[in-house]
Amino acid sequence: MSAIKEKSLKYNLHSWSAQGAIDPTVITKAEGIYFWDEDGKKYYDMSAQLVNSNLGHGNKAIVNAIKEQADKIPFIGPGFSLDVRSDAAEAIVEASGLKGAKVFFTNAGAESNENAIKMAKQYTGRWKIFSMYRCYHGSSAGAGMLTGEPRHFANEPGPAGFVKYDGPYAYRAPKACKFENEDDVADFYLELLTNQVKYEGPESIAAIFMESVVGSNGILIPPAKYVKGVRELCTKYGILLVCDEVMAGWYRTGTCFAFQQFEIEPDLITFAKGCTCGYVPLGGVIACEKIAKYFDDHKMMCGLTYSAHPIGCAAAVATLNEYKNLNIADNVAKQGKVLGQLLEDLKEKHACVGEVRYIGLFSAFELVKDKQTREPIVAFNEDPQGLMNKIIGMLKKEGFYTYSHENMIIVAPPLIITEEELREAMGILDRVMDSVDNMIK
Amino acid sequence: MSAIKEKSLKYNLHSWSAQGAIDPTVITKAEGIYFWDEDGKKYYDMSAQLVNSNLGHGNKAIVNAIKEQADKIPFIGPGFSLDVRSDAAEAIVEASGLKGAKVFFTNAGAESNENAIKMAKQYTGRWKIFSMYRCYHGSSAGAGMLTGEPRHFANEPGPAGFVKYDGPYAYRAPKACKFENEDDVADFYLELLTNQVKYEGPESIAAIFMESVVGSNGILIPPAKYVKGVRELCTKYGILLVCDEVMAGWYRTGTCFAFQQFEIEPDLITFAKGCTCGYVPLGGVIACEKIAKYFDDHKMMCGLTYSAHPIGCAAAVATLNEYKNLNIADNVAKQGKVLGQLLEDLKEKHACVGEVRYIGLFSAFELVKDKQTREPIVAFNEDPQGLMNKIIGMLKKEGFYTYSHENMIIVAPPLIITEEELREAMGILDRVMDSVDNMIK
Ligand SMILES: Cc1ncc(COP(=O)(O)O)c(C=O)c1O
Ligand SMILES: Cc1ncc(COP(=O)(O)O)c(C=O)c1O
Repeated sequence: MSAIKEKSLKYNLHSWSAQGAIDPTVITKAEGIYFWDEDGKKYYDMSAQLVNSNLGHGNKAIVNAIKEQADKIPFIGPGFSLDVRSDAAEAIVEASGLKGAKVFFTNAGAESNENAIKMAKQYTGRWKIFSMYRCYHGSSAGAGMLTGEPRHFANEPGPAGFVKYDGPYAYRAPKACKFENEDDVADFYLELLTNQVKYEGPESIAAIFMESVVGSNGILIPPAKYVKGVRELCTKYGILLVCDEVMAGWYRTGTCFAFQQFEIEPDLITFAKGCTCGYVPLGGVIACEKIAKYFDDHKMMCGLTYSAHPIGCAAAVATLNEYKNLNIADNVAKQGKVLGQLLEDLKEKHACVGEVRYIGLFSAFELVKDKQTREPIVAFNEDPQGLMNKIIGMLKKEGFYTYSHENMIIVAPPLIITEEELREAMGILDRVMDSVDNMIK
Repeated sequence: MSAIKEKSLKYNLHSWSAQGAIDPTVITKAEGIYFWDEDGKKYYDMSAQLVNSNLGHGNKAIVNAIKEQADKIPFIGPGFSLDVRSDAAEAIVEASGLKGAKVFFTNAGAESNENAIKMAKQYTGRWKIFSMYRCYHGSSAGAGMLTGEPRHFANEPGPAGFVKYDGPYAYRAPKACKFENEDDVADFYLELLTNQVKYEGPESIAAIFMESVVGSNGILIPPAKYVKGVRELCTKYGILLVCDEVMAGWYRTGTCFAFQQFEIEPDLITFAKGCTCGYVPLGGVIACEKIAKYFDDHKMMCGLTYSAHPIGCAAAVATLNEYKNLNIADNVAKQGKVLGQLLEDLKEKHACVGEVRYIGLFSAFELVKDKQTREPIVAFNEDPQGLMNKIIGMLKKEGFYTYSHENMIIVAPPLIITEEELREAMGILDRVMDSVDNMIK
């Protein structure tokens, strides 16, 4: 074992793991859509490091912005104004299209949701918060209670007032549901949510959270009619609509923010990841005009030492410019089409591929034992044989690096990927799925 | 108004403020223990940017480490091993003196406490968490519920099981208390805590949190006998002792961690701020050997995208080296003595200075209307005239920059301050206190 790995196992605690069971690969180089381990093995970075490195590795513009700001003023307390703080906030508000909005900066995704919860409660004076099953919003006490999958169990008992609802997921809708089209799907899930809002008492509900497109839990893309319906429901009852764009934002789906695909405006937007491509930790909450104005004469009860970190803000300004300079939206549109077709081919060809879902360069597919019954290859929150880990390991061995969630595999490469690279990588995936087909025979 | 400030007021939401009431100073330069605003005015940074920039501004070693890592690998997912990740964890464990300990990295202070809560609950299988009144542990849903001062009101209703206790504060102890010496203080507060632990049921208590030395709430220094007593209480009942070293750590009090002053070993240590001097966001939890071992075969339910951020880890390695290279512990010992004497002089001379408290370069003093009655210059959580803001403004006008809490003023300059600089700055403080004396006449 190399000295770096040995030291890592001796001194580091790694996320979401039994430490005795892991064998963390040592990385020594990263460039573009690739990274290399200490043995010189090269990997396609097919989930962009937790769907984060949208511009890939080694982007010079971001690196230079970091270096320049480090030389100038690496840190100054959040009470002060600073050129890059103002510039980053301006650029982000403009990207959102929300007139009169303002930004509160945090360090990352969970913290952004923590602060959105507080803003929503303060602004509305209400205390219940809705979020979806099968979503991920972070792991701290508040964000974790938003999270609607097993990673939030460790947050319990959590704060009172967190209510979960079922979001659109046609492929695994209750068996009684007969859907003819997308509108039927939207109507069904809207009816569920509308009832639940009434049962809980709308006047006690501060906010409804949604990932504009559900990410980690398998790229669940809501019908536009559904998102519009939720927006209307919120407006009707004075409930705030919070779109979590931590993973779906920053051109991942083609538009800068994913909610822009559905032609609605949220009241609060949470973001992180792609705003700096993770080169420096940064996240934040965009508050629409009415909420921003509310805090003109009400003390906003949010604060943290590193709010609007200078290097983070400098990196954000550079990253947002780079999205434009590199015409990232165009590349996502173009490669997204290629990816969609390749995924449809995958489904067509492989017995183990039950459903494929994709929007822009944000995609996932479900592994099943049987296409007809849709029985997942591993049951919900159960994988005693570590089957999914094994499949991820087979992909990794062939140089295709990504991660899985339940029975699903995420494909979300850096947004700078070329058609050639995409086809090569998806060729690996295709070959490994042959083996998975054999496993379920 | 300058363009930067105008943009800032238009687009940024600032921490803990009614946005209409603030006038954020624009900073354009920072070097050593000084920073400058856009009009070229120079300030003594007498609270090190929220007690964070321990090595002052523009430290070349940290800046270079950031730049080098940005060029190499600015980001890679937390599942991988990386040289700087291993090195940072090793250096931090060694600094703690805890044999066999491991580190889980986060982005900042609140997140560190969030994760310490989860580890403590998971390890013990218990659900109650004790923390002190008059302490600050962060503002997210979990860390905020640890916080024992008004900034946590916005976190309610919070998770169940958070219990607050009264920590040592001799100057404002209940009036019936007659203390002859430090031991009496320790005994009184230990009796209170011991009773409370029994009343709550020790077998349901996962952890007792304490700031090793309470920071933001006015440098409340516990008697060593108290800290040892809490350690014994915890050991007796299988409760974990968590020391929050976010502000008190990294040589602020003279030793690397403040708990080292009291000759005890905590079970969990949370840290942030001084580990990188805030040049890049980084925090973490040090888990003692038995807890680290527990997670060998139990899945640790903690995780975040930016855990062990490469640039943060590189900055931490450089910062820890710099503390040694610059003999910071020696300077804190030396200047701490000078500061202590200057504060005693201040108390001696000024009618408005009720008590001074100091350890290393970590100090605060209480403004009172009357030394005899100890009546604070503003009542708890009440300052309708904004008197404390006014006093902080008077100091700022003279070039002495710091912040206040309730009726207290914090003095905690960068640890690189020289005797000459310290005497100059404290001279300003002395003069401004003359005016405050006049205000209470
Ligand atoms: C949609 C979403 N929200 C929030 C988070 C939490 O972000 P972080 O890990 O930076 O706290 C994630 C992380 O993957 C996410 O995907
Ligand atoms: C002792 C202590 N713990 C935790 C925190 C929270 O740290 P952060 O603001 O980085 O979340 C602070 C911040 O001042 C602190 O002083």
